[in-house]
Amino acid sequence: MHMSLVCLAKPVLYGYFRSSCSWRVRIAFALKGVEYDQVPVNLIKDGGQQLTEQYKTRNPMQQVPAVEVDGVTLSQSLAVIQYIDETRPGPRLLPADPKKRAQVRMISDLIASGIQPLQVSNYDRQVRWPLESILKQTSGKYCVGDEISMADICLVPQVYNAERFKVDVGQYPTIKRLNQTLLEIEAFKVSHPSCQPDTPAELRT
Amino acid sequence: MHMSLVCLAKPVLYGYFRSSCSWRVRIAFALKGVEYDQVPVNLIKDGGQQLTEQYKTRNPMQQVPAVEVDGVTLSQSLAVIQYIDETRPGPRLLPADPKKRAQVRMISDLIASGIQPLQVSNYDRQVRWPLESILKQTSGKYCVGDEISMADICLVPQVYNAERFKVDVGQYPTIKRLNQTLLEIEAFKVSHPSCQPDTPAELRT
Repeated sequence: MHMSLVCLAKPVLYGYFRSSCSWRVRIAFALKGVEYDQVPVNLIKDGGQQLTEQYKTRNPMQQVPAVEVDGVTLSQSLAVIQYIDETRPGPRLLPADPKKRAQVRMISDLIASGIQPLQVSNYDRQVRWPLESILKQTSGKYCVGDEISMADICLVPQVYNAERFKVDVGQYPTIKRLNQTLLEIEAFKVSHPSCQPDTPAELRT
Repeated sequence: MHMSLVCLAKPVLYGYFRSSCSWRVRIAFALKGVEYDQVPVNLIKDGGQQLTEQYKTRNPMQQVPAVEVDGVTLSQSLAVIQYIDETRPGPRLLPADPKKRAQVRMISDLIASGIQPLQVSNYDRQVRWPLESILKQTSGKYCVGDEISMADICLVPQVYNAERFKVDVGQYPTIKRLNQTLLEIEAFKVSHPSCQPDTPAELRT
């Protein structure tokens, strides 16, 4: 009997505990209830393990995350999340309604394309205030209405990063409220940078 | 009789002839055969017309493009393109197969998130070579297999921008081949920056 073993294999996530894009993928796996294996790629050790030839073969972008799933290797966290959403059972990560889906993608792209580590000083003016303004219109309990979506998956790691860089999110009441609500949810807790296999002992909480 | 006039109205594109993100949306409209109105937003004149309070109300990001469609205003070109694809008849801009769809999104995100105008000098090393490497694996006649997709919509304006900044794409044979093939297609021609309503006379060809 010929069995399609590829499809039965658990996905493998190549990621880094503190990478916001890796965290996004971990949240998505947790929300969908998908079991997966993690292979840590340390972005600092050995001058950056993502720069090795071995990793480059896996992901030419030499970035984390990369995910091996169903026989293909995917990078770019939003593409990975939507693939998982479309091929796995469990709660939808993108709403069924096309307009709401467009708003989820708009917010996700805004966060994902806005994160430019070298421009932290300009980041607030350029991205966070417009984000607050959009979320004021789209949010219910969560970023878009009352269902958790890819937009929420993007928001929480972004706020975590902002706080690492000492940005006071208190001035953005909608962002602050949504972040607090989301951090209470199990999928956001188990995927948190403070409790991953590669989290250093001194950063564990 | 109650008629849903909102749905019958033509979409309105707020864009700029030379913005690569605006061009993406124009290509998508052309491929789908969707009629739309254009409102030029000049990013240079008057210190940047996208910065006015009037435009900010429309798009808090103060960027082009923004599209008014079916009673909502959407920004972020990939979100707009996918909305148009999901709600309009005509050729699919994302493949039906989930793996191919993931590859299309991966390439599109790679191009979209990689475009950082302030880092043109690093851009080649960071994005274009990995893109060539991915396209070598995914491409057929077009970026992913033999059907035109959102990835192609992203590629052509990116190469146009690269050439404006004097990058020699000749060293990327797959990118060069795909770009040449795509530029022969009517939807990429009619949407080209050289022939838009707001293209200055001296740049028309």
